[in-house]
Amino acid sequence: MQIAIVLFDRFTALDAVGPYETLGRLPDSETVFVAEQAGPVRTDTGNLALVADRTFAEVTRPDIVVVPGGPGQTAQMDNGVLLDWLRAADATTTWTTSVCTGSLLLAAAGLLEGRRATSHWLAYDVLGRFGAEATGERVVTDGKYVTAAGVSSGIDMGLTLLGTIAGADHAMAVQLLTEYDPQPPYDAGSPEKAPARIVEAMRAKSRFTFA
Amino acid sequence: MQIAIVLFDRFTALDAVGPYETLGRLPDSETVFVAEQAGPVRTDTGNLALVADRTFAEVTRPDIVVVPGGPGQTAQMDNGVLLDWLRAADATTTWTTSVCTGSLLLAAAGLLEGRRATSHWLAYDVLGRFGAEATGERVVTDGKYVTAAGVSSGIDMGLTLLGTIAGADHAMAVQLLTEYDPQPPYDAGSPEKAPARIVEAMRAKSRFTFA
Repeated sequence: MQIAIVLFDRFTALDAVGPYETLGRLPDSETVFVAEQAGPVRTDTGNLALVADRTFAEVTRPDIVVVPGGPGQTAQMDNGVLLDWLRAADATTTWTTSVCTGSLLLAAAGLLEGRRATSHWLAYDVLGRFGAEATGERVVTDGKYVTAAGVSSGIDMGLTLLGTIAGADHAMAVQLLTEYDPQPPYDAGSPEKAPARIVEAMRAKSRFTFA
Repeated sequence: MQIAIVLFDRFTALDAVGPYETLGRLPDSETVFVAEQAGPVRTDTGNLALVADRTFAEVTRPDIVVVPGGPGQTAQMDNGVLLDWLRAADATTTWTTSVCTGSLLLAAAGLLEGRRATSHWLAYDVLGRFGAEATGERVVTDGKYVTAAGVSSGIDMGLTLLGTIAGADHAMAVQLLTEYDPQPPYDAGSPEKAPARIVEAMRAKSRFTFA
């Protein structure tokens, strides 16, 4: 089984690395990082690059596609090369997935119309514009489409899908291997839980229009 | 403030990316990925490379050092270039940190002697051999040394240290931005919580001697 994780300029690293570190440990699978051009792809902070080992043209029939998000997603919303690849790959995938605003790219490719999906909490309304029904759940499965909320939720999505495909024991083994026993020092990981002043400040300074 | 994240062949990606995505969002800071040679450094699965933008020789006085772990850690335990750099950098850091078996490299450099520290749960005993006191906590702070447990715990470590340095509000904002509201589909993230058959199978097949 081939898992293709998409990279593009100014993606968010953890969006991609969460599913890579969990779902990527699926038995008898190969994970490939894929982008329009092969080579280093810079993240949103500019301080890190991950290497795309393959071009889109080289990966034509992945079984699972993972699309991360990040500030660079906006510039990809009318990238025909990426959207065409997503549509073509999706025609034969068993699972098409996203983390964070990666779901907006699936939506822009026309793949989420009429489906329940999620995204980063700042971007729910954009999903609706593409005919998807945004939900506040952390991981949303609708048919073969699995979308996850912001950034770190790709870890939960990866483990969830790993369990579905390979069974609970394998997913628990990967959870134990990666010691995923979260103990955040604060309880501010969603707009419902964070102090209102922090939520409002983030809404106010969000310059991303997403679409 | 300069944050240096160390890379070496066959490190575990999430060990490095967890602190990068959290601690790396410290205001007025620069994060640099550093290795013996600059260029792509392959992770433990072989399916991903992160780019080290700088060599050890180019990063001489980082304020914060982050050392990830992973299967490749064993081969670094007698790498004088890495250990010498860790000792030299540590002489002027404000914080010296690790994730997973990265703590064994700090220990091998002589930096954890007589200190409380942690590591991946399969590697506690090795810390003891280097004169550190292994604890079962997820994030352990002893003076300026902050060590985290396995792989995903680097996210909790990053947020903890971010709060200490920049204040709780900033750390909560980063938690909200990265939507770190964990909802693992299983409760198997530590050897105390995972089914005994899975813990024992992992102990049995662990081929890493670590030191």
